[in-house]
Amino acid sequence: MANISIGSLDFPKVSEQPVEIVERKGTGHPDTICDALGEELSIALSELYIKECGAIMHHNVDKALLIGGIADPQFGGGTIISPIEIYLTGRAINELNGKRLPVEELAIETAHKWLSENIPNLDISNHVIIHPQLKPGSKDLVELFERFQLKGEIPLANDTSFGTGYAPFDDIETIVYELERALNNKEFKKDHPYVGEDIKIMGVRNGENIRITIAMAFVDKYVKDLNDYKEKKEIVENYAYSIAQRLTEKHVDIFLNTADDEENGSVYITVTGTSAEAGDDGEIGRGNRVNGLITPYRPMSLEAAAGKNPVSHIGKIYNTAAMDMAERIVSEVEEVDEAYVYLVSQIGKPITEPQVCDVKLRTNKDIKGIEEKVRKIAQEEIDNLPQTWKKFLNRHFRLY
Amino acid sequence: MANISIGSLDFPKVSEQPVEIVERKGTGHPDTICDALGEELSIALSELYIKECGAIMHHNVDKALLIGGIADPQFGGGTIISPIEIYLTGRAINELNGKRLPVEELAIETAHKWLSENIPNLDISNHVIIHPQLKPGSKDLVELFERFQLKGEIPLANDTSFGTGYAPFDDIETIVYELERALNNKEFKKDHPYVGEDIKIMGVRNGENIRITIAMAFVDKYVKDLNDYKEKKEIVENYAYSIAQRLTEKHVDIFLNTADDEENGSVYITVTGTSAEAGDDGEIGRGNRVNGLITPYRPMSLEAAAGKNPVSHIGKIYNTAAMDMAERIVSEVEEVDEAYVYLVSQIGKPITEPQVCDVKLRTNKDIKGIEEKVRKIAQEEIDNLPQTWKKFLNRHFRLY
Amino acid sequence: MANISIGSLDFPKVSEQPVEIVERKGTGHPDTICDALGEELSIALSELYIKECGAIMHHNVDKALLIGGIADPQFGGGTIISPIEIYLTGRAINELNGKRLPVEELAIETAHKWLSENIPNLDISNHVIIHPQLKPGSKDLVELFERFQLKGEIPLANDTSFGTGYAPFDDIETIVYELERALNNKEFKKDHPYVGEDIKIMGVRNGENIRITIAMAFVDKYVKDLNDYKEKKEIVENYAYSIAQRLTEKHVDIFLNTADDEENGSVYITVTGTSAEAGDDGEIGRGNRVNGLITPYRPMSLEAAAGKNPVSHIGKIYNTAAMDMAERIVSEVEEVDEAYVYLVSQIGKPITEPQVCDVKLRTNKDIKGIEEKVRKIAQEEIDNLPQTWKKFLNRHFRLY
Amino acid sequence: MANISIGSLDFPKVSEQPVEIVERKGTGHPDTICDALGEELSIALSELYIKECGAIMHHNVDKALLIGGIADPQFGGGTIISPIEIYLTGRAINELNGKRLPVEELAIETAHKWLSENIPNLDISNHVIIHPQLKPGSKDLVELFERFQLKGEIPLANDTSFGTGYAPFDDIETIVYELERALNNKEFKKDHPYVGEDIKIMGVRNGENIRITIAMAFVDKYVKDLNDYKEKKEIVENYAYSIAQRLTEKHVDIFLNTADDEENGSVYITVTGTSAEAGDDGEIGRGNRVNGLITPYRPMSLEAAAGKNPVSHIGKIYNTAAMDMAERIVSEVEEVDEAYVYLVSQIGKPITEPQVCDVKLRTNKDIKGIEEKVRKIAQEEIDNLPQTWKKFLNRHFRLY
Repeated sequence: MANISIGSLDFPKVSEQPVEIVERKGTGHPDTICDALGEELSIALSELYIKECGAIMHHNVDKALLIGGIADPQFGGGTIISPIEIYLTGRAINELNGKRLPVEELAIETAHKWLSENIPNLDISNHVIIHPQLKPGSKDLVELFERFQLKGEIPLANDTSFGTGYAPFDDIETIVYELERALNNKEFKKDHPYVGEDIKIMGVRNGENIRITIAMAFVDKYVKDLNDYKEKKEIVENYAYSIAQRLTEKHVDIFLNTADDEENGSVYITVTGTSAEAGDDGEIGRGNRVNGLITPYRPMSLEAAAGKNPVSHIGKIYNTAAMDMAERIVSEVEEVDEAYVYLVSQIGKPITEPQVCDVKLRTNKDIKGIEEKVRKIAQEEIDNLPQTWKKFLNRHFRLY
Repeated sequence: MANISIGSLDFPKVSEQPVEIVERKGTGHPDTICDALGEELSIALSELYIKECGAIMHHNVDKALLIGGIADPQFGGGTIISPIEIYLTGRAINELNGKRLPVEELAIETAHKWLSENIPNLDISNHVIIHPQLKPGSKDLVELFERFQLKGEIPLANDTSFGTGYAPFDDIETIVYELERALNNKEFKKDHPYVGEDIKIMGVRNGENIRITIAMAFVDKYVKDLNDYKEKKEIVENYAYSIAQRLTEKHVDIFLNTADDEENGSVYITVTGTSAEAGDDGEIGRGNRVNGLITPYRPMSLEAAAGKNPVSHIGKIYNTAAMDMAERIVSEVEEVDEAYVYLVSQIGKPITEPQVCDVKLRTNKDIKGIEEKVRKIAQEEIDNLPQTWKKFLNRHFRLY
Repeated sequence: MANISIGSLDFPKVSEQPVEIVERKGTGHPDTICDALGEELSIALSELYIKECGAIMHHNVDKALLIGGIADPQFGGGTIISPIEIYLTGRAINELNGKRLPVEELAIETAHKWLSENIPNLDISNHVIIHPQLKPGSKDLVELFERFQLKGEIPLANDTSFGTGYAPFDDIETIVYELERALNNKEFKKDHPYVGEDIKIMGVRNGENIRITIAMAFVDKYVKDLNDYKEKKEIVENYAYSIAQRLTEKHVDIFLNTADDEENGSVYITVTGTSAEAGDDGEIGRGNRVNGLITPYRPMSLEAAAGKNPVSHIGKIYNTAAMDMAERIVSEVEEVDEAYVYLVSQIGKPITEPQVCDVKLRTNKDIKGIEEKVRKIAQEEIDNLPQTWKKFLNRHFRLY
Repeated sequence: MANISIGSLDFPKVSEQPVEIVERKGTGHPDTICDALGEELSIALSELYIKECGAIMHHNVDKALLIGGIADPQFGGGTIISPIEIYLTGRAINELNGKRLPVEELAIETAHKWLSENIPNLDISNHVIIHPQLKPGSKDLVELFERFQLKGEIPLANDTSFGTGYAPFDDIETIVYELERALNNKEFKKDHPYVGEDIKIMGVRNGENIRITIAMAFVDKYVKDLNDYKEKKEIVENYAYSIAQRLTEKHVDIFLNTADDEENGSVYITVTGTSAEAGDDGEIGRGNRVNGLITPYRPMSLEAAAGKNPVSHIGKIYNTAAMDMAERIVSEVEEVDEAYVYLVSQIGKPITEPQVCDVKLRTNKDIKGIEEKVRKIAQEEIDNLPQTWKKFLNRHFRLY
C-alpha cells in the first residue's frame, strides 16, 4: 500500500480570492513548438522501439531550443529572410543488436510532420532547420528497459522528483484554455485563415472582473492593409468575447494585440503565423504544464513533461498521474468540490511506491466519510502507473 | 498610486501542512550552468552598453541550451571523450553609431570566465564549446532604451506577465539552500577537493521527518578507489547532517548518491565535477527561481529571470521585486509572520503601474492595523522598480 | 594593349605521350554537389542583386562543406539514418539602403531547388540540412561594385592570381566527359532509374589502351536483388562501352564498380543515388575544373571557380576566359591544332590588364604567319572580360 | 615488378619558357590552417591508434572548413568581435573492443596545440571555435587495417587515383618557398613580432624578370601608427629582397601588400596575424601541394594530402612517393637534370602495384644508359610504399 495522505484544503477557493492569474501559450508559440516537437519525438521513438524490439527503450529528449529567424512581414504577404533553427537534443538508444536505428531521421521527419500539420503557413523545407543532436546514452539502460517492458517488472523511479495536479478548472482557467483552442480550431480557420497559430492568452481576474489579454499573430498574406487588419481584429475580439462570456458570469474584457501601434502601422503580422520567424526563441518546459495552463495560484511542477521517457521518468508520469487522480476524485466522488494532488518519488524504488501521495480535498462533508473512496481511486491510479506510457502515446495531455 | 490589494493568508503554514517538497540545483547542475551563463552575459552586456553609450541597451539572452558531452571517468582521473556544447542565444544590439560591438566575443569570454571560476576541473579550452547565437533584434528598441536610461523615463512593461515572492524561508527551505551553499563553499573544497559542483538537493518533509536526498558529483582524480569513495561519501554525509540538524528541530535524514550501485562499482564520479560532461543536458529557466529554490507548495513563476534585460522585462524584475517586497514586509513589520506577493504587469504601461499588486499576510493581529505600513513598503518597492537593474548588476538573487 | 605572349608548344601532344590520366566527378559526387550549390548560389545572388539594385553586388561564396550522412541501403529500398549536412559559407552583402536581403533563405531555397532537380531520389526536406553561414563582408565593396556595374568602370582584379585553359579535348578527355554526361542524362534515366547521380570516372591511357574505371552509385529501390544488380551492371557497362568506342580508335576497357565484393553481397547501392548519404564528405573546389575535367597532364589552376563573384574574381573569370580563348583560337584559326592559355592578373589593376597573357600554340605552320589572328582573338577576349559575368549567369562552364 | 615507364621530357625547361607562375600559401593562410589541422589530426589519430591497438586504424579527416570571424584591428591593438569557426570532419574509428576513444577531444586538443604554437597572437580559448564532426566510418575497415598493420599485408589502394612529383625546384620556386619560410621563421619574428603568419606569396616570371607579390598580415599591437607601418613594410621588403636576390641571377622585384590604400589608412593589419579573423574562409586541399607550392606550369594533383589516412590512401601516399622518387632520381643519378613522376593506382590492388609509374627525365645523355639506375630507384620507392606512413608521422612534407 502506498503512503497516501488525505487531508482538507484549508484556504478559500482560488476563484474566490481577490486576484487570480492564468496563462496559456498556444500551438504556435515558440515554447509550445519546442514542447510539441520534443513530445512528438518521444512518441515516435516509443513507437519505433516497440516495432523494432517490442518495448519502449530508454530515451529522454526533453531539451530543445528554438532560435528565431528573421522575417519581413508585409500586408498581402512578406518574406522570410533567415530561417528558424531548432535543436532537438537528448538521449536515445540508436542501436539494437547491431542494427543502427534512424533516430536522427525520425527527429527530422517527426518535426516536419507536426509543423506542417500545425503551422500550415510555415514552409517546412525552407523556413526551418531541424538539428537533431541525439546521443545514445548509457547502454546499462537497455537491459533495464527490457526488464520493465518485456518482463513486466515495475519501472524504478529515475529520480527523486514530484508531480502535482488539481481539478476542476475554475472560470478563468476554462476561459483561457478554451479560447486558445477555439482560435486555433481548424474549422474556424477555414473562414479565418488570417488567424496565426501563435496565440498567447493571459487572464487576470481582479475580484469580479476578468481581463483577457490575447497576443495573436496575424498571417500577413490574408490581410490586405491596415484597415483590413483593424476589421479582422474586431472580428476576433468579438468572437473571443462571445466565447468567454458564455463560460462565466463574471464581467469579461478582451484585449487583442495591445502592443500594436496602429498609427505607425506597427502591428502584429507575420509571414508564417508564429513569432518564431522573427526573433522569439523558445525552449522545452517553459510553457504550459500538462493540464494545459500556467497557474501561479495553483501548485505547479517545474518539470518539463515533454520529451521525457514515458516509462520511468517521474517528472513526466507523476504530473499526469496527479492530474488524472484529481480529475477522477472530483468526478467520481460527488462530495468533493475540488482536489489537489502531490506525488513524490523515491529514486530507485518502484514508481508504484511514492514517498508520498498527498491528496487534499475541498468538501463540505466530513472527510472521514469519503476518505475510503478517495483512497481507493488514489491507489488504483498508483497501481496503474506502469501503464501511464500508453496515455502519452495517445497524447493524453493538454500541453500543445 | 498602484493598485495594491492587501489580504490575509487563509491557510495553514506550509511548514505545518503534512507534506512539503523543496529542491535546489547547485552551481554545477546543467540547468544552473545555463542560468549562470545567461545572466552573466546579460550583466556583461549591460556593462558594455553602459561603457559604450552610457545606458543599458536592449538585449534578451534568456534562452540557452547545454548539450552534454561524453566522458570516461575513472578513479584517480579519467578522460573527456567528447566536449560539452553550450548554445547561448537571444537578442543583443550589436552596433551603435556604426560601431560593431563584440557581443559574440563577450559571450564566449564571459562564459569561459564563469566556468573557470566556478567549475575549476573543467578545462575551458578543450572540454566545452561555447556557441554564441545572438541576433541584433529590433532597432526600434534602441531609441526606447535610450529614453528609459538616458532621459530617465519610466520603462514600459514589455509583456503582460507576473512575478511572485514570499518570505521567510521555513526550516526545510533553509536547509536545502544552505546545504548546497556549504558543499559548494570554496573554503570547504580546499580540504575536500573531491566534492564536485554538480549538487542537486531534494528535501521532502513528511510530518516531522525531513528527508534530504543529495546527488553530488565526485571529482574522480581526487578519489583513489571504491573504498576511498565510500569513506569520502561518509565524510560528506556527516558534514551535511551536522549542518542540517543545526537548522531545524525536526528529525533529519541525509541520503547521498542513492543511485550508486557500489557492488558493481557504478558510482557517481566525474572528470570535471559536473554531470554535463556525460550526457545531462540543460536549459535556462529549468532550475532555481530567483530566491534560490524550487518550491511546488509555494507560488512560483515559470519565467526564467536569467538572461533577460534588467530594465523592462517583467518576467525578471517583478519576480525579484516581489521577493524583496515580501522580505522587507516580514523584516520591517513585526506583526507579520509571513508574506506572499504577486505582481502583474500591463503590457505597454510603465512598470511602476502594475495591473495588480496582491499582498497576502499571515499575522495574528488585525490586518487593518498594519495595512498602512505594508502598503507603504509595497509602494516604495514599486516606485523603485526603475532602479531594479542595479540589483541585477550586483547579482542580487540566489539563482546560482 | 595587353601583354600578350605568343609561343609554340614544344612537347609532344599529351595524347601521344605514353601515359595520360583524366578524371571527372559527376553530378552526384559530394565535391560536385558542393561546387553546384556554391555556383548556383552565386548566380541566385547575382540575380537578386540585379533585381534589387540594378547591379551585381559583392559576394564570394566559394567555400562549402558537405558532411556525409548515415544510410542503410537495401535491395528494394533502404532508409536514411542520419541526414547529410551542407555548410554554405562566404560573404554576401545582405543589406541595401536599409533593406535586409534574404540571402540565407536564398541559399536554402537555391540548394533545395538544385538538389531536387539533380538528385531526384534525395528527399530534400528530410535527408539534407542546409546551413547557410553568410557574413556581410566589407561595406567598402558596395561602392566599388556599384562603380563597376552601374557606371561601367572596368573591374579591378581582386587578387594576384591566374587562370589556364586549353583546347581541344583529346580522345580520352572526350570519353571521360561524354560518358558521365550520357550516364547522367535524364532521358537515359527514364529507362534506367537505378542509375544514381554519383558517377566518378577515371580514365587512364597506357599507350594505345584506354582503361575507364567508373564508380557509379545504384539506387537501391530500383534493384531487386544481387542478381538484378549484376544484370544492371552489365547493361551499364555495355552502354558505356558502346559510347566510348565510338569516340576513339584506341582500345577501350570499361570497369564498373570494381570495389564490389559481390560474393559477400557488398556492392555499391545507395538510397539516394549519392555516396554523400553514407559518409563521403565534399568541398567546393576539389572537383572538376571549369572545362569539366581533372587533367594532371594539362595545366590546371587550383582555384575553385564555383561560388566566386563573377565580376572581379580572377580565380573565376580568368579560368573561363583562358578556356574560351583557347577554344576560339583552335576553332577560328585553322592552322592551330592545339592551344594552351595562361592568364595572370595584377591585384588592383583593371581585369583587362593582365600581367601576362601567355598563349602557346601547336601548329605545323610558321607561328609568325598566324600570330596576328591569334593576338586579335586574345585581345578581344581580354577586352570582353568585363562581360564575363553574363557567361556565368548562363552557366557557361562544365563544372557540374 | 611494377609497370614502370621511363621516357624523356621533350619540352623546354619551365624555367626557360617565357612565363612561369608559382605560389605558396604560408602558415597562417586560412587554407593552410585547414591543411595543418587536418594533417595534425591524422598524425594524432595514428599515434592514438598505435598506442591503443598497435596499429594505425582507418581514418580520413581530409575535409575541413574554416569560417572567418569578424575583427576590428587597430594600430596599437584592436579587438576580435566574432570568433573564427573551424569544422574538422571525416571518418575515424572511435571504438575499439568496446572502449570509446576520445577522437573528438583529440581533434580539439590537437587543433589548439597547433594553433597556439603557430599562430601565437590567436587566443585559442576565445578567438576560435573548433567543431569536430567525426563519424566512425565502416567497421569492415577495422579488420582490413589490422591486416595491413599488424599482419604486415600490403595495403590495398582505396581508390583509382594518382600522384605526381618533380625535382628539382627552379629559381622562382626556390624563392617563393624560401621567402615564406624566412618570414615565418620564429627566430626572425623575435625581432620582428609585427610579422603575422598569414603570408601568401605569388611569383610571376616574365622572361628574366621575377616579380614577387607578398600579401602579409601585420599584427596590429606591434605597429604604432601608419608611419610605423610604412617603416616596417620597408624593413620587410628589404629583407625579402635580400633573400630573393641571393637565390637567383635574374632580376627580382618585391611587392608587399600592394592592395594597401595608405592614403586612406586602409592597410593590412590584423589582431591575430591571420586574415581568418575577418572574413577569409578556408578549406583543406585548396592550398600548397605536398612539395610546398602551387605550380600551374608543373604537373599537379588536385588531391588533398592533408588528413587522409597514411596507410592506404593513394591521394596521399602516391603524391609524396612521386615527389620523393623524383628527388632521389635527380640527386642520385648525376646525368639527370630534371625528373617528373606520375603514379596511378588500381583500386583494390596492393599499393605496390600501380597501374602505371611514368617517369620522365631531362638529360643530355642517352636514356638507355641510365634507365637501369632510374628503374632501380623507382622500384625501391614502390617497394617501400607500405612504409610511407612513417614519413607522414615525421611530417615529411612541406604542406604547412
